[in-house]
Amino acid sequence: MASMTQSRSATSIGSPDGSDEPALLRAARRQPARTPPVWFMRQAGRSLPEYRKVREGVPMLEACRRPDLVTEITLQPVRRHGVDAAILFSDIVVPLRAVGVDLDIVAGVGPVIAEPVRQLADLDRIPRLDPGQVDYVGDAVTTLVGELHGTPLIGFAGAPFTLASYLVEGGPSRDHARTKALMHGDPALWSALLDRLADVALTFLKVQIDAGAQAVQLFDSWAGALSAADYAAHVLPHSAKVLAGLADLGVPRFHFGVGTGELLPLMARAGADVVGVDWRVPLDEASARIGPGCAVQGNLDPALLLADWPVVEREVRRVIADGRSAPGHVFNLGHGVLPNTDPDMLTRVVELVHSAAD
Amino acid sequence: MASMTQSRSATSIGSPDGSDEPALLRAARRQPARTPPVWFMRQAGRSLPEYRKVREGVPMLEACRRPDLVTEITLQPVRRHGVDAAILFSDIVVPLRAVGVDLDIVAGVGPVIAEPVRQLADLDRIPRLDPGQVDYVGDAVTTLVGELHGTPLIGFAGAPFTLASYLVEGGPSRDHARTKALMHGDPALWSALLDRLADVALTFLKVQIDAGAQAVQLFDSWAGALSAADYAAHVLPHSAKVLAGLADLGVPRFHFGVGTGELLPLMARAGADVVGVDWRVPLDEASARIGPGCAVQGNLDPALLLADWPVVEREVRRVIADGRSAPGHVFNLGHGVLPNTDPDMLTRVVELVHSAAD
Repeated sequence: MASMTQSRSATSIGSPDGSDEPALLRAARRQPARTPPVWFMRQAGRSLPEYRKVREGVPMLEACRRPDLVTEITLQPVRRHGVDAAILFSDIVVPLRAVGVDLDIVAGVGPVIAEPVRQLADLDRIPRLDPGQVDYVGDAVTTLVGELHGTPLIGFAGAPFTLASYLVEGGPSRDHARTKALMHGDPALWSALLDRLADVALTFLKVQIDAGAQAVQLFDSWAGALSAADYAAHVLPHSAKVLAGLADLGVPRFHFGVGTGELLPLMARAGADVVGVDWRVPLDEASARIGPGCAVQGNLDPALLLADWPVVEREVRRVIADGRSAPGHVFNLGHGVLPNTDPDMLTRVVELVHSAAD
Repeated sequence: MASMTQSRSATSIGSPDGSDEPALLRAARRQPARTPPVWFMRQAGRSLPEYRKVREGVPMLEACRRPDLVTEITLQPVRRHGVDAAILFSDIVVPLRAVGVDLDIVAGVGPVIAEPVRQLADLDRIPRLDPGQVDYVGDAVTTLVGELHGTPLIGFAGAPFTLASYLVEGGPSRDHARTKALMHGDPALWSALLDRLADVALTFLKVQIDAGAQAVQLFDSWAGALSAADYAAHVLPHSAKVLAGLADLGVPRFHFGVGTGELLPLMARAGADVVGVDWRVPLDEASARIGPGCAVQGNLDPALLLADWPVVEREVRRVIADGRSAPGHVFNLGHGVLPNTDPDMLTRVVELVHSAAD
């Protein structure tokens, strides 16, 4: 009860430093809030008819390179749902394409790599990212920050492990078998590969922050395929390099993967301010595992948005209640919005989260 | 140290009751052993050239209905690898097909259901299983027990949740969204559906036990998609019905799903003698979560079998060492054998497990 009283009075007098900081940033910095800020992973995407319209006939990678489309698509869910953050419309393979990796994003499949990484010489195909190679991203971010009128823009990048999995497998993979075989069988090549990918991710995020992104999320979508021991030994140091490289830039660092119940404390230790949690671990339990030094983000099961409203309402309220025991809570889904989600359901969730002070 | 001494002397004098019980059954009953017994999920399958040969031109469901093929395919890995158990060659949808559900197993896709279950009336299409509808399974088991010369045969069935997911989605699903929407949105229909599927699974397992199967595994492959709260409320009671129905039949009950780190104690509580664990949770930690009343099974990452032998050897030894703190350990993979696994690697793993007394 003490912390709830504290939350209310803090809200009524504004944030502790007297500034009018957006709710997303306050929650990420573990400042008290009456209701959590809310956004949705993959909110800018196929669930929206206006998205499907502007993407008609435009391949994914081309859309990611056109600042006009990036701007429009990023703004769509902010306009429609009134979420507390925009997330840059892009793809984790965009910086890989920018440095010259021969890849495409195939509809219904995902990223497909022409020549997968299998040996040391293949690393020559992954040079350092020059910020000028993704100037269209910086341009879009600059435009967006102007049009968002204070709603924070979250930049993002793929984490080294998840990028490595695409590069080694040649595309999406269920079992990540070649990736794991390389990780265990050739630790030197593995480490060199992830180090390069950490550099790419770090530069990509810095471009976005330099252009005005107020927060960043490192997506390690497939990290949950690993045991904690493997993650700690073979992945964490490289993700930590990315996150440490941003430590002095004053933007909260979100860190997310799916199925990461065993990895949550390690994902915090990698240097996160906010750890994203999927729906498998309740937020109170997740926060206990992560410790008091991080806020949490999540964790409504996106599949439940296909149920009727009473089910969604009950689950949203439960997530908010669970999140109250964390030192900070950003409401989100436990994974990306499913394409066949009714967008009105998302709007209702935002309204409920915003009104759901206990 | 006490338990290790106990193990050695127990092995040297035979099992405590003086019988010559197979190692698999002793481990499942938490009797001490010097080395764990070993078998592999999906050991009878595409990793074996002799399997691909006998399956040539024979659709999966037809193969499952032909006792000669079931017998041959089930025996292949026992002959080749010297594993400590055979697992019946079948598929979890076989009893559904047997009761008349219009489905097929499509190569490269999985089970495809012609008319998915969406409403109460659809339950009429899932009548009770009459043992005579799967007499070919009983016939194969009888033949197998004769040919296995004491190596135990493990029977199996799909658990209600995993069967329900196929029936509701119409096929394999990444997100189980319709399944979860039904579970939350229409609990009465959900419960009725899972109750029917529990009956089907129970009858299917009893047919196998009556014909001589010495152990059974309930596969809840997709249960890891659920939170513990949802599993406990909407799934556990139905899996428990299946496992309780076998309690008096004197065969150990294995219970397995992938990505079930959060569910392990619940999967034990459902009535398992042995809980299968994937590679995400080390066996010592898994056993601590499960408690002393169950043995554990697992948990080498099948992806690692694509690495070189030194990597595999190190990981096999680690799994065995982790398993020593459990009250019983059946060595297995953390999921099924990947089709592109070199079968010689599996044979070497069996040899190592059998020789790996500390």
